[in-house]
Amino acid sequence: MEIRNIGEFQLIARLTAGKGYDPSVLLGIGDDAAVFQAPAGGSLLACTDMLVEGVHFLREKTPPAALGHKALAVNLSDIAAMGGIPRQALVAVGWPPDCPLEYAEGVYKGLYALAEEYGVNIIGGDTVRAPVVTINITVIGESRGKAVGRNGARPGHLLAVTGRVGAAAAGLALLRAGMEEGTGESTKKGTAEAGAEGNENSGLPAAVKEDLIRAQLFPVPCLRAAAVLTAAGAVTAMIDLSDGLAGDLRQLADASGVGALLYGDALPIDNHTRAAAAFLQEDALRWALYGGEDYELLVALAPEKTAAAREKMKAAGVAFTVVGEITPAAEGLRILQEGRIAPLKARGFDHFSPSS
Amino acid sequence: MEIRNIGEFQLIARLTAGKGYDPSVLLGIGDDAAVFQAPAGGSLLACTDMLVEGVHFLREKTPPAALGHKALAVNLSDIAAMGGIPRQALVAVGWPPDCPLEYAEGVYKGLYALAEEYGVNIIGGDTVRAPVVTINITVIGESRGKAVGRNGARPGHLLAVTGRVGAAAAGLALLRAGMEEGTGESTKKGTAEAGAEGNENSGLPAAVKEDLIRAQLFPVPCLRAAAVLTAAGAVTAMIDLSDGLAGDLRQLADASGVGALLYGDALPIDNHTRAAAAFLQEDALRWALYGGEDYELLVALAPEKTAAAREKMKAAGVAFTVVGEITPAAEGLRILQEGRIAPLKARGFDHFSPSS
Repeated sequence: MEIRNIGEFQLIARLTAGKGYDPSVLLGIGDDAAVFQAPAGGSLLACTDMLVEGVHFLREKTPPAALGHKALAVNLSDIAAMGGIPRQALVAVGWPPDCPLEYAEGVYKGLYALAEEYGVNIIGGDTVRAPVVTINITVIGESRGKAVGRNGARPGHLLAVTGRVGAAAAGLALLRAGMEEGTGESTKKGTAEAGAEGNENSGLPAAVKEDLIRAQLFPVPCLRAAAVLTAAGAVTAMIDLSDGLAGDLRQLADASGVGALLYGDALPIDNHTRAAAAFLQEDALRWALYGGEDYELLVALAPEKTAAAREKMKAAGVAFTVVGEITPAAEGLRILQEGRIAPLKARGFDHFSPSS
Repeated sequence: MEIRNIGEFQLIARLTAGKGYDPSVLLGIGDDAAVFQAPAGGSLLACTDMLVEGVHFLREKTPPAALGHKALAVNLSDIAAMGGIPRQALVAVGWPPDCPLEYAEGVYKGLYALAEEYGVNIIGGDTVRAPVVTINITVIGESRGKAVGRNGARPGHLLAVTGRVGAAAAGLALLRAGMEEGTGESTKKGTAEAGAEGNENSGLPAAVKEDLIRAQLFPVPCLRAAAVLTAAGAVTAMIDLSDGLAGDLRQLADASGVGALLYGDALPIDNHTRAAAAFLQEDALRWALYGGEDYELLVALAPEKTAAAREKMKAAGVAFTVVGEITPAAEGLRILQEGRIAPLKARGFDHFSPSS
């Protein structure tokens, strides 16, 4: 069945059926606007992200649950990067009328799975017709303490990242190379069987491919890591890695009015990413610096508090790596690699440049 | 110059340059998420609406300022329909790379003009590439008293609308007929002069055309009317007229579990709309019932409080007309016209139905 076969209101009812809210929601989906309880004291956070088919994702390469997951995850990641707690989400979707209903339902399945995992209420939205699948999610969150912006880094502070970098770009490269077969992430039926064979000849273990493609399709917002870090009181500036380490570092440095020296050899590029780079004859460092979509956190830290933060992250089971230092603005962005310091090209993703 | 000629960050900087916020905004555009002060007590409202080129508007028929105005106005109208006060807005836009920069700037001009008129801060957003212009605005508001939903109407309550109905549909019909020349609303250069002539032969005064086209392009959100009405304490249910009186009445009736009798002859269809209908050989009543986009308020009122509400609306200078009554659910939706009662077809706008 295609979306055109059922009306707008039936579609909304179908996609949101049986879903509830926590007590902060006074009035959910179905009225002119949603109503929710204002938190007592503190401040609110809000962010919004639009994902467009053909620009941010290819429908045939993106399982619907991954699309729903990612559309919300990128917003939760923005709330994490402020040290906040996501609470409410609004979901506006443009659907082509010939989009299979099954795809729309899959998108909402992924969306609700992530929302429920992090206690986020989907309180409203809009459902319209569009030439390509277009998802715009807005998340409203709460900030218990002071929200952590990008502008607090000062020369002498250290730079660190959570998790690993480059894995999402590696996953995207594998998807582009048509290597999703055998990973369980294919959108096509029956390829799991076909892939089991192909897999043995591919030279890259299925578990590696699956891990990296999952990093691309199902990014995990670093809400818990952000909570641990902000509780440790060490973070002076924070940003999530959406456009690639080099581009996001540039944002943080510009907002703070500082420079930075990145320790290239220290970047947490894991063995899976390195194996995929070797297999595809790509450069893992390039993925880490310019690939984007890792949705890890890049933080600046007061050096005297870094050891304590590292301990707390270790106790929480979150990888946390010092990857550089903040320098005076005049030194710009640089990278130290194999003992040599070079300028860091801060080429982030730009939607409108001809090459991206 | 086209959007592709400048980068994403330059575009955002250019569109938002020199714009400020009121003190409720702790951190505006430029970080991962915006931060704003939670209101002391009370509840919050949130709504979101997506406008897609080719679906909700034709770029060549829509001056950019009108598009920016309307994208925000439809959200402000939703906040009005809850009796709320709009406070913060997030603006996500998908632009085709070949869209003229001038058009984008015009959109933001219309957007900021309306935002400033109603004291709304534009605190964040997203700027991406898309195949057609796609604008998604989310508005967060405050509800000082109890938010007014759609579900409080009871048999015996009266139905009333603010302003006039059918004018926006009349304006759309005039635009579709290519009659914007001479009204000052054309997107084409030089047509104002050409239109001054055409105008004399069109049989419809330029002032009439201009008024109706303006109703379509620059809808006025009924925030002041809503404030007066809710302060009067008479309103039991409220909805804004976006899909047409018949469709929106159906929404209100369904949410409240009631029926309704509409007084067809009492509908505030003004002389401009009637003149346009006569000129285009269209049916003004059909525009009023099914045309949509009037963004007036449809309210149910306790009958004993209706006279007082009417007085207050008169004092506030807002047209306010009793147009029907709430009946038991079993009677469904009906219309009384020229002394005869007939079922009211509740054909609202449906994005996915083949005819819309």
